[in-house]
Amino acid sequence: MMVAPAVALGVGLTVLAERPDDSAAQVAGFAVGAAADVGAVLAAAAGSAVVTFEHEHVPGEVLRALAEAGAVVRPSPEALRHAQDKIVMRRVLTDLGVGVPAWAEVADVAALRAFADAHDGRVVLKTPRGGYDGKGVLVLSTTAEDGWAAAQEWFDRGWSTTLLAEEVVPFARELAVLLARSPMGQVAIWPVAQTVQVDGVCREVVAPAPDLDEELAGVAAMTAATIAGALDVTGVMAVEGFEVAGPDGPRFLVNELAMRPHNSGHWTIDGSVTSQFEQHLRAVLDLPLGDVRARERWTVMVNVLGGEHPDLYRSYLHVMAHDPSVKVHLYGKSVRPGRKIGHVTITGDDLDDLLGRARHAADYIRGTITS
Amino acid sequence: MMVAPAVALGVGLTVLAERPDDSAAQVAGFAVGAAADVGAVLAAAAGSAVVTFEHEHVPGEVLRALAEAGAVVRPSPEALRHAQDKIVMRRVLTDLGVGVPAWAEVADVAALRAFADAHDGRVVLKTPRGGYDGKGVLVLSTTAEDGWAAAQEWFDRGWSTTLLAEEVVPFARELAVLLARSPMGQVAIWPVAQTVQVDGVCREVVAPAPDLDEELAGVAAMTAATIAGALDVTGVMAVEGFEVAGPDGPRFLVNELAMRPHNSGHWTIDGSVTSQFEQHLRAVLDLPLGDVRARERWTVMVNVLGGEHPDLYRSYLHVMAHDPSVKVHLYGKSVRPGRKIGHVTITGDDLDDLLGRARHAADYIRGTITS
Repeated sequence: MMVAPAVALGVGLTVLAERPDDSAAQVAGFAVGAAADVGAVLAAAAGSAVVTFEHEHVPGEVLRALAEAGAVVRPSPEALRHAQDKIVMRRVLTDLGVGVPAWAEVADVAALRAFADAHDGRVVLKTPRGGYDGKGVLVLSTTAEDGWAAAQEWFDRGWSTTLLAEEVVPFARELAVLLARSPMGQVAIWPVAQTVQVDGVCREVVAPAPDLDEELAGVAAMTAATIAGALDVTGVMAVEGFEVAGPDGPRFLVNELAMRPHNSGHWTIDGSVTSQFEQHLRAVLDLPLGDVRARERWTVMVNVLGGEHPDLYRSYLHVMAHDPSVKVHLYGKSVRPGRKIGHVTITGDDLDDLLGRARHAADYIRGTITS
Repeated sequence: MMVAPAVALGVGLTVLAERPDDSAAQVAGFAVGAAADVGAVLAAAAGSAVVTFEHEHVPGEVLRALAEAGAVVRPSPEALRHAQDKIVMRRVLTDLGVGVPAWAEVADVAALRAFADAHDGRVVLKTPRGGYDGKGVLVLSTTAEDGWAAAQEWFDRGWSTTLLAEEVVPFARELAVLLARSPMGQVAIWPVAQTVQVDGVCREVVAPAPDLDEELAGVAAMTAATIAGALDVTGVMAVEGFEVAGPDGPRFLVNELAMRPHNSGHWTIDGSVTSQFEQHLRAVLDLPLGDVRARERWTVMVNVLGGEHPDLYRSYLHVMAHDPSVKVHLYGKSVRPGRKIGHVTITGDDLDDLLGRARHAADYIRGTITS
């Protein structure tokens, strides 16, 4: 999705794709190779002014090899570490005084149970690295046996010397702050969005977050800007967090960081003057950043998850005919149940109407409804 | 510019480009060859559901070879003829009762002078085929000798047995109607836009056309729909015409037809829910058409013409920093004075402000102003 803005900006783009039929390789000049393959990455990077990533799962040795080869990597490996390792991230945010859920590094199930006992009998266990879309996350309760055996297994497997234990946050809703920061230090922050996650997977995003307390919006935006500055982030960063009710008004707790264009920012493609993909390119190339204003009152983005039927064509036609205002974005991925295979976006003035139409379109393409 | 919407729509695209460094070839899977090379076109078309064009200069023999090979060509060669040959177009529009400037087929300068004498001493001479951006057009006056020798030369060269003579229309302004029509007969018409041409080259477009008489807007839209239906057009068509004051209110006279995404429709990329490039794909593939609503009150598009300095980078940086709301679109073409090398778009509520900012950006990139 960076290809179109790259063209408009006059920026040449070489994509490293694992296979010639990868989504990105379908549309751009590309080199074939894995992000973990040092030689492939170095070859693809040769001649480029800047190297950037569309996911965080880039091994340290690849980043080091790029640095040794003199490549300019943005965001920097030092910044990226905080999006790669949740314990590293929690430590830094705590040091910065940023609100985060109560957390602890735990080395065994005994420590995990102790943490749960101290937090209403519940705990969220996360692997520090490699989790996404609800993978690498267990929610445990001292009053139920579900999951504790799996937790023991995680410790036994030794993925990490310690795992991350967190309180179950009694949030009012989830919010996402999307920003971009350039090496010259320019920062642009899109309107704060509301996200809805189901089973750890983002289901829908509304921008701006409806009825958001103005002060809380400011706090969330400043929190994201503080993190970006302190970690010297370049490019787009998404800060996912919780809105929590409190005696002194609502609070914002940071849950996750992503240092790349992010699902919670897909609404910007159709909904903002500058999409997160264009902005990421501008930011990593140290070009002046673009306007992040929303074009219309509301933008609703709903993810399309893979369903049981692999042929999307008929349902897709139906959706296009049913509602000409829905923008359908498919990612060129094969359909697997639950996999994010695209999204739909709709913009306008009547939020309830837009939500209904976007959900209908996404459910129809997936095949969970047929009329 | 069709690549990005093709990806979002899940449509595979093969581009036939003359050279590997052509604009389109920079971003898409492509085959190399000329649009006039029958073999190259047939090879590129093999396996595609539909073949379409981004310009009208496709020789008849190529179109015939595609038809013989069983390719589905949209718009059809029969429809395309009316965008390729201005005399054919004028004849059909006259038969349809569509308002056009007074015109005649002329075979020599004597006939041309007679036409001018009958139309206030002035005449516009056009080659029926191959003209664009003011090329292939001469404006002549019986009171001045400029151009008459060139006119004689055009007849002598025998490009065509007859040339097209037209009255000089005393227009109030120029308008463009952009529509899309699909094989199933669905038609979508964007808001009528105002265009400003300088020396035959489109300089700027405002959508919707400011202060446009509501009835005239309806007439212009219906005229375009009538033409599209009568000629069985598929894909995007731009109808360029004149608003002319008259005793019974303003009239709309059709000047030019283009059967493809057109410069007068570039405002739709940032300004409409559905861009003309996405819509062209939907139309030629017989997919349901998308919403053509303007996202904001006003959209202003100003073309960037090549200037004296070939290096755009510094001026481009300045423009991005100066006005983060301006969307800059470069076409990856080398700079030649007067050549369209890109455009800028800006959207918002205050038309005068938007016009000033868009013109400043375009002039600055071109290098005609430096502050």
